[in-house]
Amino acid sequence: MAMQMEYFSGLKPGATSRVRTYTFDHLPLQRGGQLAPVTLAYETWGTLNAEGDNAILITHALTGNSHAHDPEQPDNMKVAWWNPLIGPGRPIDTSRYFVICSNVLGSCYGSTGPSSLDPRTGRAYGMRFPVITIRDMVHAQRKLVEHLGVRQLALVAGGSIGGQQALEWAVSHPGQVQKVAVVAATAALTAQAIAFSEVERQAIMLDSRWLGGDYAPGEGPGTGLAVARMLAMITYQSEEAMELRFARNPAGRADVAAPTRSPDLGGRFDVEGYLYYQGEALARRFDANSYLYISRAMDLYDVSEGYASLDDALRRIRSKVLFIGIRSDFLFPAVHVRWLADRLHSLGGDVIYTELDSPHGHDAFLKEWDQMTAALHLI
Amino acid sequence: MAMQMEYFSGLKPGATSRVRTYTFDHLPLQRGGQLAPVTLAYETWGTLNAEGDNAILITHALTGNSHAHDPEQPDNMKVAWWNPLIGPGRPIDTSRYFVICSNVLGSCYGSTGPSSLDPRTGRAYGMRFPVITIRDMVHAQRKLVEHLGVRQLALVAGGSIGGQQALEWAVSHPGQVQKVAVVAATAALTAQAIAFSEVERQAIMLDSRWLGGDYAPGEGPGTGLAVARMLAMITYQSEEAMELRFARNPAGRADVAAPTRSPDLGGRFDVEGYLYYQGEALARRFDANSYLYISRAMDLYDVSEGYASLDDALRRIRSKVLFIGIRSDFLFPAVHVRWLADRLHSLGGDVIYTELDSPHGHDAFLKEWDQMTAALHLI
Repeated sequence: MAMQMEYFSGLKPGATSRVRTYTFDHLPLQRGGQLAPVTLAYETWGTLNAEGDNAILITHALTGNSHAHDPEQPDNMKVAWWNPLIGPGRPIDTSRYFVICSNVLGSCYGSTGPSSLDPRTGRAYGMRFPVITIRDMVHAQRKLVEHLGVRQLALVAGGSIGGQQALEWAVSHPGQVQKVAVVAATAALTAQAIAFSEVERQAIMLDSRWLGGDYAPGEGPGTGLAVARMLAMITYQSEEAMELRFARNPAGRADVAAPTRSPDLGGRFDVEGYLYYQGEALARRFDANSYLYISRAMDLYDVSEGYASLDDALRRIRSKVLFIGIRSDFLFPAVHVRWLADRLHSLGGDVIYTELDSPHGHDAFLKEWDQMTAALHLI
Repeated sequence: MAMQMEYFSGLKPGATSRVRTYTFDHLPLQRGGQLAPVTLAYETWGTLNAEGDNAILITHALTGNSHAHDPEQPDNMKVAWWNPLIGPGRPIDTSRYFVICSNVLGSCYGSTGPSSLDPRTGRAYGMRFPVITIRDMVHAQRKLVEHLGVRQLALVAGGSIGGQQALEWAVSHPGQVQKVAVVAATAALTAQAIAFSEVERQAIMLDSRWLGGDYAPGEGPGTGLAVARMLAMITYQSEEAMELRFARNPAGRADVAAPTRSPDLGGRFDVEGYLYYQGEALARRFDANSYLYISRAMDLYDVSEGYASLDDALRRIRSKVLFIGIRSDFLFPAVHVRWLADRLHSLGGDVIYTELDSPHGHDAFLKEWDQMTAALHLI
């Protein structure tokens, strides 16, 4: 794991982090098989009380990591992905709560994933890693929080697949979660979102350096991953946001090459240079096979899986649930977030729905700090 | 050209077509340089009158061809791409008009494009083909229609980049076009649409068989082109249409492999099988370099280019203009089509705007035959 962390620390320049790991012997998996052993990398802030019931679990998105907060630089928005929302006096108040964020199962930031060594072979799992689901991620998190002495979570909060995890916590472990905040996530992805996701995976596997998943560390399909990220970045924004920011402006600087190193055909638009930069940045920090597995977990997620109906799944929830939709999100459309909130409410659930009025699309939960602060104060 | 036509006839099984070609000596290009010689493949239906003013030009979309109509199978919707709209008594009435459809410059269906032989080298142009624009395509079409004896076009009609061409005809050659029908096209692409387009091109160039564009005929980057097409097919539809058709249904049959031949991760969704099929179908029938050049022409198109302002460009129009937007189109959003129509109207233009009330997204102009028929009867 140490070597992997060198390649993929996932930390922004200047971030200060004390990542710890917890390893347990095995995890049975929703789609069959098991993983053994399983390590989760995690960080915590604040102090657990004697009753073990003041803990908050923060759940991250596809390419995220455990560094949601940086207590040494609380006002630096760039060094930790939910920094403005976490800290003393903030909605996720580290002076009152014991806050945990773990890197998800399947990722490359210290938790067991496709780049981990398979103890059966002594080599990286690669595509021999089993199919994992959001429920598996949550199951592993549950082992971690119990290990940390948590008896009940006061809150689970996250956006995107972090929101899927929060919802899954409420359904899978209703007795252990007092409140959940499901941000920009729905009961299940739309066909369109699955389609985008599959194009991203095909782009990764199209890269000749993917080698069926058996690339050496640091020699993976960076070009394919960059192209996948370019597409993902479009789906995280919105037509409106991209028009405001880029319109048809020419690229101001052309110092970032296209992933395929292709020459510009008739000039370069600003939006292209931006996507090249974002693609390259992810390719440098993330593992391609982790991308395949975690994005697939996102597609496969259906909160009703294993229950007789969606209503049966939702009826299990005993937590108070805050749903936060985003007006301009087309990956997890607000109308579907609201629909789920209404459904749960109609079943007698304790539900709050609010919507970020933002042009920033899906990514608004990582940008609209004032609105997110106000929204999280609702629960 | 003959060999290329064998590989890429672009005709549906059972289609009957009499493609002719017209070759002229050279075409100066908007972005610099020239092409020499230039061939356009085209088909015609109906008879030109003595005055040479009863001609209609049909302009096709990115991967289209000259076979807009199949007079031997007028009721077969599948053998020609606008068949239901063209023929005796139909909106584009071949008993009254001389109807022309030419394969665009840059394409691979008989017109000069990157797969044509560069007379300077005796080899295919590949990426040595010059950057071409919608204006260049229209300029070449003008040479063709003049060659055919047309003095004035009664109508130019097309959708998507065919709509860009129709609009460009009205601006570039105001004296030669009586009416135009601009379907699902705008003054210029949004940043989001350019972004999708660039991801598609990167996917093509990511394929190791692309070889900088110098692949042998039939040995091109089919996998990359298939992935590009998968993405394009998403942008031609809509969340609503994909939800209606695919939702989260599992694939009924799995006889089409993914472009990269990758195994399914936890099952296959119907929408994935559909996209694999569409990707493979395009890879079999279209030239990858043509895709790069024509999609780029789509991005680069800005009707105001070369004029002091958009208004100055629009003021040149003397044709009656029918704009057709599509409610669910997110590649060429209806709001932008309508905005352009309003702008032209405010400048004193003779404008009609109508909107297809369809869930089918951008592709509705190739699906909603009743609504398209009604719309075309407005002009």
